[in-house]
Amino acid sequence: MSVSEFELIDRYFRRGGARRDDVAIGIGDDGAVLRPRPGHELVLVTDTIVAGVHFPVTMSAGDVGYRALAVNLSDLAAMGAEPAWCSLALTVPQADETWLHGFADGLLGLAERFDMQLVGGDTTRGPLTVTVTAHGWVPAGQSLRRAGAGAGDGVYVTGTLGDAAAGLRVLVGETECDADSGSALTRRFLRPEPRVALGQFLRGIASSAIDVSDGLAADLRHVLEASGRGAEVDLARLPISASLRACERGDAAIERALGGGDDYELCFTVPPGRESALGAWRAQDGVPLTRIGTVVARPGLRFVEAGGRVVDRHIAGYAHF
Amino acid sequence: MSVSEFELIDRYFRRGGARRDDVAIGIGDDGAVLRPRPGHELVLVTDTIVAGVHFPVTMSAGDVGYRALAVNLSDLAAMGAEPAWCSLALTVPQADETWLHGFADGLLGLAERFDMQLVGGDTTRGPLTVTVTAHGWVPAGQSLRRAGAGAGDGVYVTGTLGDAAAGLRVLVGETECDADSGSALTRRFLRPEPRVALGQFLRGIASSAIDVSDGLAADLRHVLEASGRGAEVDLARLPISASLRACERGDAAIERALGGGDDYELCFTVPPGRESALGAWRAQDGVPLTRIGTVVARPGLRFVEAGGRVVDRHIAGYAHF
Repeated sequence: MSVSEFELIDRYFRRGGARRDDVAIGIGDDGAVLRPRPGHELVLVTDTIVAGVHFPVTMSAGDVGYRALAVNLSDLAAMGAEPAWCSLALTVPQADETWLHGFADGLLGLAERFDMQLVGGDTTRGPLTVTVTAHGWVPAGQSLRRAGAGAGDGVYVTGTLGDAAAGLRVLVGETECDADSGSALTRRFLRPEPRVALGQFLRGIASSAIDVSDGLAADLRHVLEASGRGAEVDLARLPISASLRACERGDAAIERALGGGDDYELCFTVPPGRESALGAWRAQDGVPLTRIGTVVARPGLRFVEAGGRVVDRHIAGYAHF
Repeated sequence: MSVSEFELIDRYFRRGGARRDDVAIGIGDDGAVLRPRPGHELVLVTDTIVAGVHFPVTMSAGDVGYRALAVNLSDLAAMGAEPAWCSLALTVPQADETWLHGFADGLLGLAERFDMQLVGGDTTRGPLTVTVTAHGWVPAGQSLRRAGAGAGDGVYVTGTLGDAAAGLRVLVGETECDADSGSALTRRFLRPEPRVALGQFLRGIASSAIDVSDGLAADLRHVLEASGRGAEVDLARLPISASLRACERGDAAIERALGGGDDYELCFTVPPGRESALGAWRAQDGVPLTRIGTVVARPGLRFVEAGGRVVDRHIAGYAHF
């Protein structure tokens, strides 16, 4: 094939999403040149998605482009950062113009929505793999971290859990359910909504935060380990959508909510004295926040079942290997 | 396999190369938190290498790790930037501990040498693909660019050209030559030396710069196109090593030097009034600088052959697709 890397980048990616005035040089040189924001710290995140591992090979180019950036925006949200720039390392088996066009639309459309500019990248030939590295800003010292949860803090999650994992099962034909529920769930898998505005709102309120990518149980455990604490999570309080209930019965719905992964919701903890501050968020935004449990001093994650029995229940997170 | 992503990252990468005091949070959270340098601009580069495409599948883990960072350091050098931080997106077919150990040694050893800290990353399962995103600093407004070459400027290259391309041919058995020359050439392919100190030295001296990754002819053409100029390059002045002459005769050596790629030398232009400033570099450092030609007003890259005949000679660069 005669299309060079440079023409590819020019043709599909040069529009670069949003146009930001802190970009001195964007795509087209050996590197981008960017102007830092005074008084702020730079937050850097990176995530790779591999065809056949992180998404089905049948997924549309637009959905792949969207996902590659969305998972990184979710990490920026978990740090409380305001998105700024990203770079793209795209490995594709061949230079398929239709595919590249769709991919660029999915990625750059989302970038534009979050005022983010694509400032560089590398296009290579090989098995379909996409790495996005994303940058954002937080006022110095105000980033959200995994460490910081204290005994007595409320444990919160955004939105509903388990929908994306069930949506993937619908997509690959492992679950059957009514058309409306199925399409609501698959949409949650295909177009996760990163909780970027909420992440910034939580600065100064949350004592810790993480995004739920490997499943609530696995990700909450990372927070608890980093914080040297434990938690009790009330299974009856897990936010489970009507669509998930329609497609996965009883325990299966709870398993998806705890261990399914790909939710890209935020899980965060809030000290008792600051929980009332969440009211301002609830009043102005549609993303529901649910208090699902409490941080405790004793390490480990435990679940409160119906009737109040506290159990140790092993929930495997997404296994990377 | 039961080794989780997190344990992998912990075990092999947490030492992170150099320890820098501008890193508030490194590996281990959803993102890194980094402190910008006042009065400076951030330079961001990213490069992917794919097994079987950019390097032979037989290459050692240490050489793969070294290469993944070296090609990015070379881009930082071409921008005149001082290296600071990098992130790693590593996709591997399986979690092979010996391989990961060697890879981390190759990458982090080089990072340490250039005072660079690995601050984040993502480890995924799939066909061997490595993306490094690297960050460096330049005093505001002083980055080197591809655009800026003016008619009359000298065209320079560092080191010698074509060695790495010939070294790859030796490695895969396409060229045979004496053991000493062969090993010198393969070393040039396996352990390219990014010209980081020179890149910083050239700030305020060079009118344009690029690193030679796709072959001198292709990369110099990028500079000329970005600058709206042409150049005449004297074939007799191309810096060709004794090892390359020993392994590739006559025209083949020149073809490697012009079109071989993987050199990771710098090509830059210097206005006549500033060429004398290069003397300070020559005096203090072993990397030779060679003036190979002159920028001219008429667009296009032309070559001066023995006897003074100027020819248009088509040299294909590395074809990415």
